Amino acid sequence: MNKPYVRLDKDNAAVLLVDHQTGLLSLVRDIDPDRFKNNVLALADLARYFKLPTILTTSFEEGPNGPIVPELKQIFPDAPFIARPGQINAWDNSDFVAAIKATGKKQLLIAGVVTEVCVAFPVLSALAEGYEVFVVTDASGTFNAMTRDAAWRRMEAAGAQLMTWFGVACELHRDWRNDVEGLGTLLSNHIPDYRNLITSYTQNRT
Amino acid sequence: MNKPYVRLDKDNAAVLLVDHQTGLLSLVRDIDPDRFKNNVLALADLARYFKLPTILTTSFEEGPNGPIVPELKQIFPDAPFIARPGQINAWDNSDFVAAIKATGKKQLLIAGVVTEVCVAFPVLSALAEGYEVFVVTDASGTFNAMTRDAAWRRMEAAGAQLMTWFGVACELHRDWRNDVEGLGTLLSNHIPDYRNLITSYTQNRT
Amino acid sequence: MNKPYVRLDKDNAAVLLVDHQTGLLSLVRDIDPDRFKNNVLALADLARYFKLPTILTTSFEEGPNGPIVPELKQIFPDAPFIARPGQINAWDNSDFVAAIKATGKKQLLIAGVVTEVCVAFPVLSALAEGYEVFVVTDASGTFNAMTRDAAWRRMEAAGAQLMTWFGVACELHRDWRNDVEGLGTLLSNHIPDYRNLITSYTQNRT
Amino acid sequence: MNKPYVRLDKDNAAVLLVDHQTGLLSLVRDIDPDRFKNNVLALADLARYFKLPTILTTSFEEGPNGPIVPELKQIFPDAPFIARPGQINAWDNSDFVAAIKATGKKQLLIAGVVTEVCVAFPVLSALAEGYEVFVVTDASGTFNAMTRDAAWRRMEAAGAQLMTWFGVACELHRDWRNDVEGLGTLLSNHIPDYRNLITSYTQNRT
Amino acid sequence: MNKPYVRLDKDNAAVLLVDHQTGLLSLVRDIDPDRFKNNVLALADLARYFKLPTILTTSFEEGPNGPIVPELKQIFPDAPFIARPGQINAWDNSDFVAAIKATGKKQLLIAGVVTEVCVAFPVLSALAEGYEVFVVTDASGTFNAMTRDAAWRRMEAAGAQLMTWFGVACELHRDWRNDVEGLGTLLSNHIPDYRNLITSYTQNRT
Amino acid sequence: MNKPYVRLDKDNAAVLLVDHQTGLLSLVRDIDPDRFKNNVLALADLARYFKLPTILTTSFEEGPNGPIVPELKQIFPDAPFIARPGQINAWDNSDFVAAIKATGKKQLLIAGVVTEVCVAFPVLSALAEGYEVFVVTDASGTFNAMTRDAAWRRMEAAGAQLMTWFGVACELHRDWRNDVEGLGTLLSNHIPDYRNLITSYTQNRT
Amino acid sequence: MNKPYVRLDKDNAAVLLVDHQTGLLSLVRDIDPDRFKNNVLALADLARYFKLPTILTTSFEEGPNGPIVPELKQIFPDAPFIARPGQINAWDNSDFVAAIKATGKKQLLIAGVVTEVCVAFPVLSALAEGYEVFVVTDASGTFNAMTRDAAWRRMEAAGAQLMTWFGVACELHRDWRNDVEGLGTLLSNHIPDYRNLITSYTQNRT
Amino acid sequence: MNKPYVRLDKDNAAVLLVDHQTGLLSLVRDIDPDRFKNNVLALADLARYFKLPTILTTSFEEGPNGPIVPELKQIFPDAPFIARPGQINAWDNSDFVAAIKATGKKQLLIAGVVTEVCVAFPVLSALAEGYEVFVVTDASGTFNAMTRDAAWRRMEAAGAQLMTWFGVACELHRDWRNDVEGLGTLLSNHIPDYRNLITSYTQNRT
Repeated sequence: MNKPYVRLDKDNAAVLLVDHQTGLLSLVRDIDPDRFKNNVLALADLARYFKLPTILTTSFEEGPNGPIVPELKQIFPDAPFIARPGQINAWDNSDFVAAIKATGKKQLLIAGVVTEVCVAFPVLSALAEGYEVFVVTDASGTFNAMTRDAAWRRMEAAGAQLMTWFGVACELHRDWRNDVEGLGTLLSNHIPDYRNLITSYTQNRT
Repeated sequence: MNKPYVRLDKDNAAVLLVDHQTGLLSLVRDIDPDRFKNNVLALADLARYFKLPTILTTSFEEGPNGPIVPELKQIFPDAPFIARPGQINAWDNSDFVAAIKATGKKQLLIAGVVTEVCVAFPVLSALAEGYEVFVVTDASGTFNAMTRDAAWRRMEAAGAQLMTWFGVACELHRDWRNDVEGLGTLLSNHIPDYRNLITSYTQNRT
Repeated sequence: MNKPYVRLDKDNAAVLLVDHQTGLLSLVRDIDPDRFKNNVLALADLARYFKLPTILTTSFEEGPNGPIVPELKQIFPDAPFIARPGQINAWDNSDFVAAIKATGKKQLLIAGVVTEVCVAFPVLSALAEGYEVFVVTDASGTFNAMTRDAAWRRMEAAGAQLMTWFGVACELHRDWRNDVEGLGTLLSNHIPDYRNLITSYTQNRT
Repeated sequence: MNKPYVRLDKDNAAVLLVDHQTGLLSLVRDIDPDRFKNNVLALADLARYFKLPTILTTSFEEGPNGPIVPELKQIFPDAPFIARPGQINAWDNSDFVAAIKATGKKQLLIAGVVTEVCVAFPVLSALAEGYEVFVVTDASGTFNAMTRDAAWRRMEAAGAQLMTWFGVACELHRDWRNDVEGLGTLLSNHIPDYRNLITSYTQNRT
Repeated sequence: MNKPYVRLDKDNAAVLLVDHQTGLLSLVRDIDPDRFKNNVLALADLARYFKLPTILTTSFEEGPNGPIVPELKQIFPDAPFIARPGQINAWDNSDFVAAIKATGKKQLLIAGVVTEVCVAFPVLSALAEGYEVFVVTDASGTFNAMTRDAAWRRMEAAGAQLMTWFGVACELHRDWRNDVEGLGTLLSNHIPDYRNLITSYTQNRT
Repeated sequence: MNKPYVRLDKDNAAVLLVDHQTGLLSLVRDIDPDRFKNNVLALADLARYFKLPTILTTSFEEGPNGPIVPELKQIFPDAPFIARPGQINAWDNSDFVAAIKATGKKQLLIAGVVTEVCVAFPVLSALAEGYEVFVVTDASGTFNAMTRDAAWRRMEAAGAQLMTWFGVACELHRDWRNDVEGLGTLLSNHIPDYRNLITSYTQNRT
Repeated sequence: MNKPYVRLDKDNAAVLLVDHQTGLLSLVRDIDPDRFKNNVLALADLARYFKLPTILTTSFEEGPNGPIVPELKQIFPDAPFIARPGQINAWDNSDFVAAIKATGKKQLLIAGVVTEVCVAFPVLSALAEGYEVFVVTDASGTFNAMTRDAAWRRMEAAGAQLMTWFGVACELHRDWRNDVEGLGTLLSNHIPDYRNLITSYTQNRT
Repeated sequence: MNKPYVRLDKDNAAVLLVDHQTGLLSLVRDIDPDRFKNNVLALADLARYFKLPTILTTSFEEGPNGPIVPELKQIFPDAPFIARPGQINAWDNSDFVAAIKATGKKQLLIAGVVTEVCVAFPVLSALAEGYEVFVVTDASGTFNAMTRDAAWRRMEAAGAQLMTWFGVACELHRDWRNDVEGLGTLLSNHIPDYRNLITSYTQNRT
């Protein structure tokens, strides 16, 4: 009766970054802007680090929603970038779905702005088509905690797994020995407390 | 095992506004009054915009519960208006149920005051009769966050989908190209941050 | 797949008040003391008003847990009162279970202190024996919001319905016309805002 | 030793609205957007209602800070409008100070975005020049509660009086009998709870 | 340079209860309604217990503000009751000031709704006339914590002492031996935790 | 359809303490440090009191993660201690799983740092292998409430029961008469309010 | 005009612990019990460490207020202990004042329960007699944050300095070289994060 | 009677960064780590941008307090760096005071960890010696909000001005025209919302 443990597999996972646009970001108020910026960039960095196929999409870049956050374009210069002409649910855009299918991956990590629309809609659609869907909750943002909670519940009831960028990185990495320095650098760049631990440790060792 | 994705369809959805009365509103303390007023009017505006059949109901308007918020009457001058003579669960009122059935819709969007009674009871009854039920959480209010959380869980366990007015509008609209100006106006009127984006954008373009 | 709507029925419901003792109450910090006291007395008043069979139980009254809150004894002078000699889960006490069975009711409304033990344990046991169980969340208290949330989830996963005293009163009453004055008095005595509405209304009418 | 009571006088007060611009508003996170929008418009409405001379100023309207909120321009079509070419402290702009002096008023009501800069700087400058300064705290916004608290303390230590738009309206009006309907309309338009009271009252009276 | 300790003296103190009206109470959202009701009644009870001259005043009882909370009238059936015809600052009403002067007391305990207007205005006026003013903060309420904080600061800067009903009761009583049972009863009736302590203690002693 | 009540049985339960290391603890910010330290030590004390087989494990003790909290080593000097060479999910370490299997227990109580990784991963793995898993939520910590909530939901959806150390102690003990003094001492050492109750009670009795 | 810097001097300071009694502690809800217990014991430990004369006092130990927390008696077995027969303000008890005068110290560190009475009253009295008074805010507790804030403001306006136990320890110690191990032990015993730093450091060094 | 407006002057200001060390940072819990890191680096960047003389100091770098955050050393490679051998109050270190005096500046901007000790002590000492002191509140951190509030009040009562890094930058810059690009870059690098405004604006312009 319980949901079985579907474990993230770096050879079977793709990342979808939905509508992290400069205008839409002004709507996000359920999370502090400094923390949110860090979380989104951490997710991008881990996607690059684990070489996960990553797909970017935006809604109406030319209008008030604004362009995609430039850092994301810089991190993924060659990623499929689907500027949707109007579909609110990215899954309604056939280029977007085709890009996903082209990756051949069955596990989808999804984050975006705002949570109850740009994230929830493709999450629900992907689940309906049999994908394993993991919401990267802390790289997704919305108007306030109340609307976030409602969105989380709707996605969870439909079978999505709720995760965080840190949990994703650790579940993909599996074992520190695969690359101690690589994971350490990723964490150090995005967790100030962890960076401090490493700095203290390094000094004490020398 | 997961709940399948039942997507809102503007041709198959009706809106039920339950007991948004001037007296009962003084009980609502889980949400700021300015935000709550805005959310309720946003839901009303989107119902009108999408031409969703809408049904109004009240409990004991003549007594301390007070009359329905006048703006709702003005927005829906011709909507069925069921002033219940005593039934607490609106679904126990046969006129109310008949009005719903008369719409021929199978998807019900429900909001009201207070959440654990005026919303939860008809939500549970409608689910029991096979309707697809969507709770518009942020256009519903109650005494405090603790009682709201308990009410959300009860409705969710019974199969209701928890949404927000913004999610509802976006899921109904599907594609900006269906009417860019219409949706833009709706969002601009009820999301100050979005209005600001449009104002900045417009100035910069001119 | 969803939980069906089991509706509270005043002819088939009993109330269990577990360990509302003067010492244990000093542990309750997830809810303001003034509000909590009001909620517990509201639940007691509604049980009396609807003539629901009510059972009181305590744990170690002679020790530091302290005696039952005197108001509860006064409201239910003739109710079964099971001072448990040591069982932490009240359901492990055969007198307690016998008292419940003697009521012949199949719906149990349970509240107590503290939520994750004195409430959750008998809730889980009662569900295991086939009762329909309704937790009166706001008449139950515990150490902090974090432990409360964990307890709510455990009970909910096992099939309990989470309610509030106000929801219980309204679901039992069904229709104001059954006794307008009776329900009005109950609400007026335990909801200051509602009392104010009635006072304003009455003055305006005269 | 205590600060003497300087009472707002509608014949001696002017209003300064500083940098309520569509871009800068996206920085405001110490107050809910719906509530903040309402507070700013309430202050504008009361300034118009009491016929207080009002001065608008902005910083770099042509750039990312964005244009002034259009509603403010509409409410005060003939007010002095000083688009500052670069001064951060509006008081450093001689046109702004000249406009204030031209009013001949000695009591200044100041609100703006963000609190610790656009409000605090002219507040401190005005105090230094001997004006009586009243900060309209809830029509001013900034990054978070921590920075707001620091800004309030700095202004208070310098002698500013901290008020709210509601307090300002009431202190200016002095007596309901001066215009019951006028003040009632103002409050009804900006306090949902008060509007509900009036609606209930009116119905009961008829 | 510091404010000297002016200690409450039961032979020199009077209580002013300003605008605790059933309509206005719906505006109070900086404090839970159950706790606020308790605090107001606690202040009333202590005023009666210490036989402090008490003055009641209201604003526009006949309109939407609603009548005074009936309990206050019952506790003080013979107290001066000034139904102000329009003055917002009660101190602008000569009957109100005359009633205060008639008491011959120089220490004024003031509470009311809402804090930044109905409390702050007479507080500032009384200070300006040389009274020692004590604000009973927790028997006063307003729209939200932000507006309360601003109001507290304005009154404090003008020289008011901020207290709570419990502090007032203790400072007036001075010594338990003056009347152990009297003070114990007062605390027991308005502090649930204290009542529990007494119940536990009494049982253990018997 | 509901999750059946699997009750903790002291003859069938083992405790897993995962990565309570001095460096990692600096990451924990969803719970106050004083409270968290107390919760972890309370869990350790109850494990010892009920003689539950307990297994300690750490990740990279030699590096910045730091050594295990010394108190845990002192309480369990002879417990299996698995210093994992790199596996992030402790369940991927065969020594760890072997140690669990060697206990012959089927109920696992798991706590650790951080919740969404060091706790959630072995919880999900253990569930997948058919264990009954109980998360000791308040002896587990992570970055913030948002990430904790996501982790709780993922574990709950997979079938874990969410508990607290206090609930665990009470469900294991079953009946105070099994050892009044033992349980009383455990609670007194870790719940200041309970200790106070006992102190007051003892004095009154003597 | 500013308050001059009066620096704590270990040769001129005494500690007053007022009414930390087992019954009264159940009233404290503005601070988590685990943290509060730790703070009070930290203050006691630092008083002993710096050999500051310390005076204990209680109110009505024989009644529901309960006895002093036993740990305080154990830490200060020979300290003056004034069980007040009834005075609420400890300064009204001549034995208490005499004990303070006997210390010959002019700086008083005061903490107690509850803040607005048992702490604030002697603080105000001591200031009135010319003592330098330092409130140890985090070793003092009361009903809620609102009442605490009001109490802090009253004491501050009268000239008290608001500190914390950690600030007190550091200001008294002046220089780590006076006793590195002594201060380190004190901090390690009462600040879990600091203890972790030391543990990590020690391991890395060995 | 009010504190006069002492305005920050970039030709007369120096910055003191006190004890931002990797170990001590694990104690900071009154502000989110991502935001705090950003604030500290923003202060450092503005000090460099305005060419303010900056002084770094640490306490016991060799021990568990850990080394200074490496970024600060990198930003200020040539700044005076005083590694204090033991003085807790940096002002007690004559090298530190000499370095300050060597700057010839009379306005001191101070930030550090933790607020009530490493910031408050030198702030109070500097005020006592006649400096104008500005606390950069949001680049200073401590255990929790309660201890921060107490520390703020103590410094404010002594005459310190409470500011934020953003307020400091704006007050130093005075006029955007002094260097539009320079200030814009500073803000863009440390305020995500402002960066988004610029990105949107730039795109719209092109």
